[in-house]
Amino acid sequence: MLSEDQRTMTHMRSEILAQPAALQATVDALLPRTGEIRALAKKSRQVLFFARGTSDNAAVYGSYLIQTAGGRLASLGSPSVATTYRSLVDLSGVLAVGLSQSGRTAEIIETLGWARDCGAQVVAITNAADSPLTELADVALVTQAGAELAVPATKTFTCQLAALAVLSIGLGAALDVAALRRLPAAIDDLLAVATAPGYGIDAVVAELSGVDGLVVSARGLAYSSALELALKIKEACYLHAMGISYADLQHGPIAVVDAGTPAIVIAADRGPALDAAVGLARRVTDAGASAYAIGGGPALAAVSTRALAGPDLPEWLAPIGLIVPGQLLTESLSRRLGIDPDNPRGLSKVTQTA
Amino acid sequence: MLSEDQRTMTHMRSEILAQPAALQATVDALLPRTGEIRALAKKSRQVLFFARGTSDNAAVYGSYLIQTAGGRLASLGSPSVATTYRSLVDLSGVLAVGLSQSGRTAEIIETLGWARDCGAQVVAITNAADSPLTELADVALVTQAGAELAVPATKTFTCQLAALAVLSIGLGAALDVAALRRLPAAIDDLLAVATAPGYGIDAVVAELSGVDGLVVSARGLAYSSALELALKIKEACYLHAMGISYADLQHGPIAVVDAGTPAIVIAADRGPALDAAVGLARRVTDAGASAYAIGGGPALAAVSTRALAGPDLPEWLAPIGLIVPGQLLTESLSRRLGIDPDNPRGLSKVTQTA
Repeated sequence: MLSEDQRTMTHMRSEILAQPAALQATVDALLPRTGEIRALAKKSRQVLFFARGTSDNAAVYGSYLIQTAGGRLASLGSPSVATTYRSLVDLSGVLAVGLSQSGRTAEIIETLGWARDCGAQVVAITNAADSPLTELADVALVTQAGAELAVPATKTFTCQLAALAVLSIGLGAALDVAALRRLPAAIDDLLAVATAPGYGIDAVVAELSGVDGLVVSARGLAYSSALELALKIKEACYLHAMGISYADLQHGPIAVVDAGTPAIVIAADRGPALDAAVGLARRVTDAGASAYAIGGGPALAAVSTRALAGPDLPEWLAPIGLIVPGQLLTESLSRRLGIDPDNPRGLSKVTQTA
Repeated sequence: MLSEDQRTMTHMRSEILAQPAALQATVDALLPRTGEIRALAKKSRQVLFFARGTSDNAAVYGSYLIQTAGGRLASLGSPSVATTYRSLVDLSGVLAVGLSQSGRTAEIIETLGWARDCGAQVVAITNAADSPLTELADVALVTQAGAELAVPATKTFTCQLAALAVLSIGLGAALDVAALRRLPAAIDDLLAVATAPGYGIDAVVAELSGVDGLVVSARGLAYSSALELALKIKEACYLHAMGISYADLQHGPIAVVDAGTPAIVIAADRGPALDAAVGLARRVTDAGASAYAIGGGPALAAVSTRALAGPDLPEWLAPIGLIVPGQLLTESLSRRLGIDPDNPRGLSKVTQTA
């Protein structure tokens, strides 16, 4: 367990702070590759993602971005259809995209090989240039996050999102490449704000340190940020954190929200999902629970118990910044709960599925 | 709040017990419709489900069944692409299947209309013959569950699964129709066992009444049962219940499992997912936590803290029975916690998404 004085010592915190450089290197390395993706795009009609854990949360971002900006169907596949059932499925016209930070998750490697056998073209997104996953891919998009020593992924996650933004551009999505080039600077600006005194993380951490569980909610493009923040809190704080869309929350699980179960509501400052975020925060506080905003601008802050400012980014890139306050919050809450965020119990860096 | 003496009085319990008759009526009504589905199948290549809440959990079963037994790609779509972003997505060759118990969830109605505009053929699965959802569908599969008065869905869920089994057969899946015809009798047999003294639900309920949260896990075809049981427990018991696949659990969330956080592990008595269920239950008990088995036969019972016998059904139909002990458990735990399972806080029968 690390004391407050050793705050800068955790790998997790230094990796959170390294994200501007990691994103810069990743965008620089991958943007020139859009031509290769375009060649694959001509032979495919839709995208099917295969991933687990953090990488699966990244895939959720990719699926929304490709559909909303690219007009192509994109969805998440089930690895067990390949690895447990060994079923043959017609995947002609499908671009299968496998994500694995290590490039060594056996289940994803096996699933991508199966996808190829079923007729799909295959793309790998990984942080490891020399890995089994890159070897079997038609195109490998290798993120440049550098070595990640903390078990909870941070910079490898945001670099996966950047790679998915490049993939979407390569697939013909109507997106502003210049905005993607400005992304590392925007994350740098956000980190400067979010690590300064008075930003508000300490107060949220103090209040969350007494709860058994919480809900993390978002919708659309930012839904991936909610899933990822909930996973971080489960991994590094051992709390019951439910990552869920605003819509699904209202189909049953809203019943768990009460005075002892707060909600973190995540939204971009602008965009069509913002109204629903405001409505959800209002519903949570009306029920006597606390609502903590990440992003969502003044509209969401006004109806929330506490608010953490989000990134200055267009909605389609906002998820890459919206997770950053959540990462800082997780690292701080983990230490406050007496946990070493770099090495949570029961986990290792390369996860193999039994 | 109802006392033990009023046990038979809850709508939820009587609806659980009505499932054999509801399933019989549904199978009888829908099996003759496979020809209509076959005609749609010829014009489509893959299936895309749209649903929320319990209906979404049913869709997960459909996606596994169609892929593992039918060789067609099947996945879950994101309604917000239609309703929040109003994006045009190429859905030619897609069979879009919308599920809504009431047939009146505005979000699903709007999404199915959008899917048709995007080039998809449209199937509705609902329990309401005269509903907006049936009106817009090319083929409407209307389940015969009868009126459901408890807010937590039970018989409408299992009838949705039966409808999805019929859909899969219509789409050409290699499945034994005779086994589907025997389904109502198998559920009747299971209910006789599961409501008899000594089955074990009371002991599990007593132990769960002191926890803040739990994990409900399964894999493959039975994954839908885990998601649905977790949702029931959230809705009717206000507990943090995480429905998750064995595989995803090991990619991070396993960290939350400890002496105070038990796991319910669900599996069919036979099939390729059973080994992983046994491995997970062993990992949970090795970590000092309790593992409660639903199904999984002697192999899973041997490594679990307590075990509830599952249905005598082939793996592809087992999910329709595996949820039944979970429904009984939820109803009993809800009352024990002083909640009225028929009317949980914050919920209503027809859910509209803001």
